[in-house]
Amino acid sequence: MIDSLLPSILQHENISRITDSGILVRDRRKLPFCTEDILCRDYKEASKAIKEMVTQGGGPLEVALNTLLYTWRHDRDSIDDAVESLLLSRPTNTTMKRTLLGVMKAYRETGDMEGIIKAAFDHYDSLYDSISDIGETLIEDGCGVLTTCFPEHTFMLSLIKAKENGKRVTVYVPETRPYLQGAHLTEPCLREKGIDCYLITDGMPAHFMREGRIQLYMTASDLALKDRTVVNKTGTLANAIAAHYFGIPYYAFSLSLDETKTREDIVIEYRDSDSVKSIGGTVIASQSSKALYPCFDIIEPELVTGIVTEGGIL
Amino acid sequence: MIDSLLPSILQHENISRITDSGILVRDRRKLPFCTEDILCRDYKEASKAIKEMVTQGGGPLEVALNTLLYTWRHDRDSIDDAVESLLLSRPTNTTMKRTLLGVMKAYRETGDMEGIIKAAFDHYDSLYDSISDIGETLIEDGCGVLTTCFPEHTFMLSLIKAKENGKRVTVYVPETRPYLQGAHLTEPCLREKGIDCYLITDGMPAHFMREGRIQLYMTASDLALKDRTVVNKTGTLANAIAAHYFGIPYYAFSLSLDETKTREDIVIEYRDSDSVKSIGGTVIASQSSKALYPCFDIIEPELVTGIVTEGGIL
Repeated sequence: MIDSLLPSILQHENISRITDSGILVRDRRKLPFCTEDILCRDYKEASKAIKEMVTQGGGPLEVALNTLLYTWRHDRDSIDDAVESLLLSRPTNTTMKRTLLGVMKAYRETGDMEGIIKAAFDHYDSLYDSISDIGETLIEDGCGVLTTCFPEHTFMLSLIKAKENGKRVTVYVPETRPYLQGAHLTEPCLREKGIDCYLITDGMPAHFMREGRIQLYMTASDLALKDRTVVNKTGTLANAIAAHYFGIPYYAFSLSLDETKTREDIVIEYRDSDSVKSIGGTVIASQSSKALYPCFDIIEPELVTGIVTEGGIL
Repeated sequence: MIDSLLPSILQHENISRITDSGILVRDRRKLPFCTEDILCRDYKEASKAIKEMVTQGGGPLEVALNTLLYTWRHDRDSIDDAVESLLLSRPTNTTMKRTLLGVMKAYRETGDMEGIIKAAFDHYDSLYDSISDIGETLIEDGCGVLTTCFPEHTFMLSLIKAKENGKRVTVYVPETRPYLQGAHLTEPCLREKGIDCYLITDGMPAHFMREGRIQLYMTASDLALKDRTVVNKTGTLANAIAAHYFGIPYYAFSLSLDETKTREDIVIEYRDSDSVKSIGGTVIASQSSKALYPCFDIIEPELVTGIVTEGGIL
């Protein structure tokens, strides 16, 4: 039901789908200017596509579920190898891990892979639906909303529902260097759904907060701890601090809190600094320059107004 | 004397120089990958070059001084028209305005244009020298320094002098979207002078502050008021707020405080949003998207530890 509400690139068939010859994965690295699917003929190719960041965010989970189903249909003996290979393709994705292990447990109990995979997809649709019902209540008529990166289903649905309820909203979308997910994914999704939005650079959010244009800051979370610590795309911390300074609430969406980790367990991954030194093929710095690309920010609980979960706001 | 200390692109002859056929202006828009001078054959072409942003920061002032001298040598009757044309080329540049009016007043008194122009260049060299002597004292051995945009002579000389005094410093240079002055100008200057530096994106400074890598934030100022309000490139405010949050001092350099303006007089100019939607020729957003590009941030006095001026730290 929520599928038809979503912007096109978040609809199931535009993330990944099964055909007779394999699993199709939409190449998010090329969006929005080029719409191209990668065909993965088996679980090995699907794992490789995930590893190479063909899809990101909630994408790997959907690809993994489709891959399990495709493997079960065509190469049933390899099902355990497929699970192992998929888990190794994105070791930091705890949602995918928990889901695949849950699917395999249910499969060993019932043997009904078709039904279990369908139930898993339905579970996430229902989760997105109920979390965004809560997210929608935080959005007031006439407000300006800031985000960071590409906050996907829960954020998009919250705004779409707010619009359906007659609330007028303007969203400020930082481009999110170095990978430009804000420019390439978030802004086109909002525009497609007719939600007023402006693309800005990553240094501008505080400017618009000071001008009184922003009343709410909302992001996804790569990880949320039960002490209300949020881990999300680099740039989130600066905006959370500025929001705190201007008295603007900051909410992060979470599909499920991590009950096992503490802040000390969080290791911030550094990626290839070449992506800082070039933008979509345009080189902006000398090869002899040094650059740094830490992937995630850690946002302390005192900066987080609340974490929006299925069970309510923490 | 300071000229030889400076990184090459800040040395006088690499900003602008007079030849037999006109005034040469280094095209900063093409740095660091292409070193090209634009030949301006008269004050009209020089004004046009300034207007079209061939040079920025302290560049227009040097071009204007050379243009006055060249006009005086070759087309003396047009000297008043030249002043008027130059002032109109960059109406927000109060330093250039004050200097040109001062030069013309002295010229009407003494008639010695050659001597007056030389004295004006010497005055700024001496100003850069004395302000950076003060800036140097703020830099401690082993510290990490954050900046924004391209803070030119005073910042560069402060760091160069700190290095000469044996202080080890690491500078974090945000790329400064949309025009990339950090990536194109600041980082190459620091690297040329052997100062350890990292290029980062504009969303990362708070990340490195949280990690304890940054102990000092220093920028230039497009305008500084006597109540300690600073106006500088967009992105400065977010970093000043984060510095405040982490207890890191923020100093802005100013050649001269503006005694006439109050915060209410400041009008923030918006530039063409197309520069947000593309990066050095690479289009990052659809033509139907909307973007915003406010040029400057206003930073309230409570976020400014001090303004570094010729007379000391305010």
